[in-house]
Amino acid sequence: MTAPFVVVGADAAGLSAASKYRRVDPDREVIVFEKGQWISYAYCGMPYFIAGRIDQLSDLLSLSPAEADERGIDLKRGHEVIAVNPDDGVVHIERGKDGETIEQPYSDLLVATGGRASTGPFDVRDLDGAFTLHNMDAAAAIDAYIADSESYSFDRVADTPVDRERIEYNAGQPAPETAAIVGGGYVGVEMAEALRERGLEVHLFQRSGHVLPPFGKPVADRVETELAEQGVTVHTNTPVAELRGEERIKAVSFDGGDDEIPVDLAIVGVGIQPNTELLDDTGIELGEGGAIRTDEYGRTNLDRVYAAGDCATARHTVTGEETWVPLGLTANRGGRAIGATVAGDETPVGDIAGTAVVKAFDMECGRVGLLDETAARKAGFDPVRKTITAGSRSGYYPGNAETDVTLVADRETGKLLGGAIVGSDRAAVRINTLSTALDAGLTVPEVERLDLAYAPPFSPVWDPVLVAAKVLGGQLPD
Amino acid sequence: MTAPFVVVGADAAGLSAASKYRRVDPDREVIVFEKGQWISYAYCGMPYFIAGRIDQLSDLLSLSPAEADERGIDLKRGHEVIAVNPDDGVVHIERGKDGETIEQPYSDLLVATGGRASTGPFDVRDLDGAFTLHNMDAAAAIDAYIADSESYSFDRVADTPVDRERIEYNAGQPAPETAAIVGGGYVGVEMAEALRERGLEVHLFQRSGHVLPPFGKPVADRVETELAEQGVTVHTNTPVAELRGEERIKAVSFDGGDDEIPVDLAIVGVGIQPNTELLDDTGIELGEGGAIRTDEYGRTNLDRVYAAGDCATARHTVTGEETWVPLGLTANRGGRAIGATVAGDETPVGDIAGTAVVKAFDMECGRVGLLDETAARKAGFDPVRKTITAGSRSGYYPGNAETDVTLVADRETGKLLGGAIVGSDRAAVRINTLSTALDAGLTVPEVERLDLAYAPPFSPVWDPVLVAAKVLGGQLPD
Repeated sequence: MTAPFVVVGADAAGLSAASKYRRVDPDREVIVFEKGQWISYAYCGMPYFIAGRIDQLSDLLSLSPAEADERGIDLKRGHEVIAVNPDDGVVHIERGKDGETIEQPYSDLLVATGGRASTGPFDVRDLDGAFTLHNMDAAAAIDAYIADSESYSFDRVADTPVDRERIEYNAGQPAPETAAIVGGGYVGVEMAEALRERGLEVHLFQRSGHVLPPFGKPVADRVETELAEQGVTVHTNTPVAELRGEERIKAVSFDGGDDEIPVDLAIVGVGIQPNTELLDDTGIELGEGGAIRTDEYGRTNLDRVYAAGDCATARHTVTGEETWVPLGLTANRGGRAIGATVAGDETPVGDIAGTAVVKAFDMECGRVGLLDETAARKAGFDPVRKTITAGSRSGYYPGNAETDVTLVADRETGKLLGGAIVGSDRAAVRINTLSTALDAGLTVPEVERLDLAYAPPFSPVWDPVLVAAKVLGGQLPD
Repeated sequence: MTAPFVVVGADAAGLSAASKYRRVDPDREVIVFEKGQWISYAYCGMPYFIAGRIDQLSDLLSLSPAEADERGIDLKRGHEVIAVNPDDGVVHIERGKDGETIEQPYSDLLVATGGRASTGPFDVRDLDGAFTLHNMDAAAAIDAYIADSESYSFDRVADTPVDRERIEYNAGQPAPETAAIVGGGYVGVEMAEALRERGLEVHLFQRSGHVLPPFGKPVADRVETELAEQGVTVHTNTPVAELRGEERIKAVSFDGGDDEIPVDLAIVGVGIQPNTELLDDTGIELGEGGAIRTDEYGRTNLDRVYAAGDCATARHTVTGEETWVPLGLTANRGGRAIGATVAGDETPVGDIAGTAVVKAFDMECGRVGLLDETAARKAGFDPVRKTITAGSRSGYYPGNAETDVTLVADRETGKLLGGAIVGSDRAAVRINTLSTALDAGLTVPEVERLDLAYAPPFSPVWDPVLVAAKVLGGQLPD
């Protein structure tokens, strides 16, 4: 009898792989081990749950254990894979319920252990009112902490395996009035919006010169203006020194600790790091960002061991080099491709262009490819860049909004390297034009000649992307 | 002394050419002859003017004669070019003001005479309340006709060379209550929305089985539902037989004239045809749709004679064959490229993918490429198609709306041939993903691996385009 396909981790990558595997080969077994109780949840939806825009935490669950079962997936929650023995093709598992250790042979193994929130120098665990937004229990705890104990309803977390004790404890805390968000990345910006929506005063601290570093300065400028207009106090170039307080958070300090702002809630969102510890001592190769190095089929350097999702590297569309950008589509797509490959239908996981979009109140932001000058030079390009402002609709049509497009190209070849878009009217989805152009390796003059859509309610005659290509194209040597 | 670059027609193509020409070569002269008084107006904005969503007709003018002058363009309005002599490199012009005929030698000639509304078998000229929407005077007349004489204000047409007598006459007519729109193409659908916005009862007549034929049935189904919900009575498979009435429109008849619906306004929008008569007897080659045949630089078969805009053919991105799709971007882009080429900077006009978007009340529609089975087979493909429904946002995020994507691919090669998108939430601009993919010649599996944007407020993890590619990809042979 052949050993089963074994998957570690029951989130986007793991369950996509298992589902696809079963569809391609319904005759063979797939077992998914998940150390906790949560499976397949929408990390990206958590700020909107906290904002109160989504009624129930369970709305963020995209696949239930029962649905996994219907797909023929042998899902084992409360089973932590604690070691991998690639020579014998076996994983060792600790069962939560009895602490027993069991062994499971595999034909193929997918490591989809995800990532976890970095906390930088901050320890949020011992301080009430200090959180990272790293999982569903944290989201539920933050939500409960913001509410006062009278207004909190457990309906918010019905039908979920949430840690009820932690919620009760947090709901019992006095409702906070002022929040510090440490880190101005996606999570920081989305949480600023969420907390304003919950009526808090919000301070957003960003270590470097502008928020949303991967989106570049032109996007960040618009976002910072929007944040300010929406009542968020943005502190750029301001590394937080310390979370202060005894039992409960009382202040965040900065300027090397010389200054502080009193707060009664702190959210630390300073990045995530890949969960690779399981493969320590297996001879696994790690790559960019400390993530598990994978090839175009998601294979690691270990025989019959694959990795996908936030714990794995990917290949960059523009540079062809290894990169690590932990995002949802990459996880789903990688898992799905590996599921097909293991089932016998060899499928590449696909390159990633680093496409990302984020909402900051009424501002929509998108970015893709190589925006950063240093990164572009490192990849062997000589980057030229241009930012233009164009209308989102015909100038005479109501709702027309200023849309800023930044394009970066290689001076010599004219090849498009990356881009960013910001604006309040349908700006985010426009980034897909650039993502597709990057995937296809188009040059700026080729982008300039794209036959993009025009109708007064949706776009001016020259789509903002075309305007940017025209202007940047004019600066390239013939 | 070198003869000037001569342009016939001062709309999108003509003025784009002249402007670009002057920017590239400020030392040489360009003369633009325009038979009428209007220049550079937004045809696509006219329904929204009539709807009342745009305050003044002058808002639709994108370049004024004074601005043309500032660009160094020698613009001559009221000058009708009545003949071209390509052997001598001379055009003959009739001046409106005195009826004098003059000659003008050219070094290069651009014919940018545009198109005009077809009226099919209907003569709208002799019937009050019957119109085609073919130019700014018509838009102003319809707008005035809908108003009653007391409520009409000439502010609507201030600062324009409009035919004031015609407006006064139409404003003096009794305000209409019921309109027939003959033809369910873009103009028909946009005018249905406009006339509902003005409070009229609206009947939309479409000869064939569904509205918006180039968008395919899945889009049309959603649009027809939307039109019905918005109070428009849609009559498909219903060729209009006759516009009935003596002085003023009284009814439109159908069923071979056996049935009629009383109306007091009729808009005929049954297509447009290219204005090529100027080149009769010059040996000009015409192509698709009777438009002037042009090559990749916009050159006709006549020496030093170019054509661009609604009067010219273009090359299709997917088939590589000649096509004729009169739309705004094509005109602007073609004119601009020819302006550069004539000035010495040889620039291709660019292929067109037949990208089009249209708004039908709250529904946004987009289409691109080869959707029609017959057209695909004629181009040598074996088309497979699939329509899927996906969310526009994460399922749990407020405002998520059903988005239908149709993809067509060649069975053997998997090459993407075309697509259509319809939905109420940011659906139209998503067509640009497909337009770019077609331009780059991507296959369906390649589209499936595009790194498109994901964030709950803007898109589900799998963008609707990716969902469609996954499903269609599953139906293609390996």
